[in-house]
Amino acid sequence: MKAAVFQGPGSIAWQDVPDPGVEDPGDAIVRVDVVTVCGTDLHILKGDVPEVTPGRVLGHEAVGTVVETGRDVRTVRPGDRVLVSCITACGRCRFCREGRCGQCRGGGGWILGHTVDGTQAEYVRVPFADLSTHPLPSAVDGFDAVLLADIFPTSYEVGVLNGLVHPADTVVVVGAGPIGLAAIVTARLLSPGRIIAVDPDPARLEAARKLGADATVAADEGPEQLVADLTDGLGADVAMEAVGLPETFETCTRMVRPGGRVANIGVHGRPATLHLEDLWIKDVTITTGLVDTTSTPMLLHMLAVGRLPAKELVTHRFELGQMEEAYDVFGRASDTGALKVALGGPQHTAVQVPDPPAVA
Amino acid sequence: MKAAVFQGPGSIAWQDVPDPGVEDPGDAIVRVDVVTVCGTDLHILKGDVPEVTPGRVLGHEAVGTVVETGRDVRTVRPGDRVLVSCITACGRCRFCREGRCGQCRGGGGWILGHTVDGTQAEYVRVPFADLSTHPLPSAVDGFDAVLLADIFPTSYEVGVLNGLVHPADTVVVVGAGPIGLAAIVTARLLSPGRIIAVDPDPARLEAARKLGADATVAADEGPEQLVADLTDGLGADVAMEAVGLPETFETCTRMVRPGGRVANIGVHGRPATLHLEDLWIKDVTITTGLVDTTSTPMLLHMLAVGRLPAKELVTHRFELGQMEEAYDVFGRASDTGALKVALGGPQHTAVQVPDPPAVA
Repeated sequence: MKAAVFQGPGSIAWQDVPDPGVEDPGDAIVRVDVVTVCGTDLHILKGDVPEVTPGRVLGHEAVGTVVETGRDVRTVRPGDRVLVSCITACGRCRFCREGRCGQCRGGGGWILGHTVDGTQAEYVRVPFADLSTHPLPSAVDGFDAVLLADIFPTSYEVGVLNGLVHPADTVVVVGAGPIGLAAIVTARLLSPGRIIAVDPDPARLEAARKLGADATVAADEGPEQLVADLTDGLGADVAMEAVGLPETFETCTRMVRPGGRVANIGVHGRPATLHLEDLWIKDVTITTGLVDTTSTPMLLHMLAVGRLPAKELVTHRFELGQMEEAYDVFGRASDTGALKVALGGPQHTAVQVPDPPAVA
Repeated sequence: MKAAVFQGPGSIAWQDVPDPGVEDPGDAIVRVDVVTVCGTDLHILKGDVPEVTPGRVLGHEAVGTVVETGRDVRTVRPGDRVLVSCITACGRCRFCREGRCGQCRGGGGWILGHTVDGTQAEYVRVPFADLSTHPLPSAVDGFDAVLLADIFPTSYEVGVLNGLVHPADTVVVVGAGPIGLAAIVTARLLSPGRIIAVDPDPARLEAARKLGADATVAADEGPEQLVADLTDGLGADVAMEAVGLPETFETCTRMVRPGGRVANIGVHGRPATLHLEDLWIKDVTITTGLVDTTSTPMLLHMLAVGRLPAKELVTHRFELGQMEEAYDVFGRASDTGALKVALGGPQHTAVQVPDPPAVA
């Protein structure tokens, strides 16, 4: 089969690799119908995730069709259409039993496209398939559902839930890429009073407004002052970091009010400075986290009933074989206006979404 | 009257100042019977708390006797013996109404010995006296109660509660000074599985063992390795920082398990490095905070029923007029073995506690 193989920092190639097969009785083999490229994949290409070694098939988000299952798999059968979650869960370890599957110690966690071969391929082996796939209602479109493999549960769990968003809160989202936009969409489920989006890119700020931000501000136009002005100088209740840079994290710690929460969602490759000389007295809570995907069924339900604008984040579609082009378009997002790129199987033609609702 | 007046970095003097008087109908004037010096006072002397300006009477912990009240004070009357809390609460602002009095925006918060004159004096003016003093049961000794003005509620609220200590948890306390020791004592109220104390000073580690630490380790003898060994390589459930240095904070972030909590209690004067390149994926929660003193009534009850070894932290007693000597002994703790120093009124003789139970 063909797959997107990590060549080392800065490079992937769509090339021939051996077909995957069942290796463990809990495995399923899934034909990939829709797949995306994640900001985390770009972090891998930058070298921020050193566990990923050359030769690895990347990708941890997909919608596909089960083609084979190991003898212990009970929940899905060949022919089932499933969401392949970015988190694989053994279900047996202490962390899985606490619902903290992102930290699975039994062989799961974030492994696809990280420590085992991933979804940017024609087929993928999904370990612990019972707990690592979600059967899809037929009404749910694959190009919607694929956004629930990672970014929507990540933004909701690691941003909104860790940040303890409450009704009436002032919420700042720093970074209006796919993760930040999904954070805006899912924060709205909890009725914040005001969402402020911060990003250097005007097109992304426009997308943020369309998806529910009440105010937007360019990263270089004084977001801290705007937040202060809008909160009587107090600061935001919740600040979410959705970029993965020391500077944006530090901005979040300066924008949050006494007693507020900083929820880091970004993937970081470098340390940040924590200004404890200011923060020690401020009752601030800072959280980091990997998604557990415990919210995926809820989000799928919201999608099925038409209350989650997921696919609106997809600005570019490609055929599966156009993987290298998709990486290029996604990696040059500031030129191409890409938010989320999605690749379909051979039945899909490479098209730009005709009337992209989220960017100009 | 006489008072301990901050002269600028490095120096205080016990000198004549004007007697305080009622300035607001909510004030009480309290004669100071027992007072202590806090580690925070040493941070002030180091220059870590720049809001404290020369001429300020220091001190934010005392037991005393009310001598005068403003016309709006209803809870205490002249003659009442009271605990003067380190936190003054207006009771009316948004933060006070949430029980987050440490962040009071109505003129309270930590103000005594910080932005208004404090308790290291013969008399102190206590603003918002109804909500900033606690009447003392006659059975409670002043040298016990004074430790509930700051360090016990601080350690409990900012360390134990923010750190979400649960039964069976492995808890690491970095720093076995008064705050760290009070964190050990109050963590035990929630039945952790194991408490590990870290400090460079063997005498303080001995005190930690006597007060309930299950294991102790010198700061330079591999505390991180010990914690890893005791937790199957996973790390502690909770790490509390009770020193106020970047290095000890960073140690805490390395010792905590995935999904664990770092509760910063220390007063910091410099930024720390936050290793987000390791922590972003670890589901770690970091909290900072100033005490709200909402736990003070509970702690007073535990003291009254004999279940809180507070006074055991007091290694040195002085007359009130020996303030400069008390600062000296406390400031040279590594030489003097001081944990907590307490100063009584003229009725007390300066004595070293005859059989100090907590240090050799």
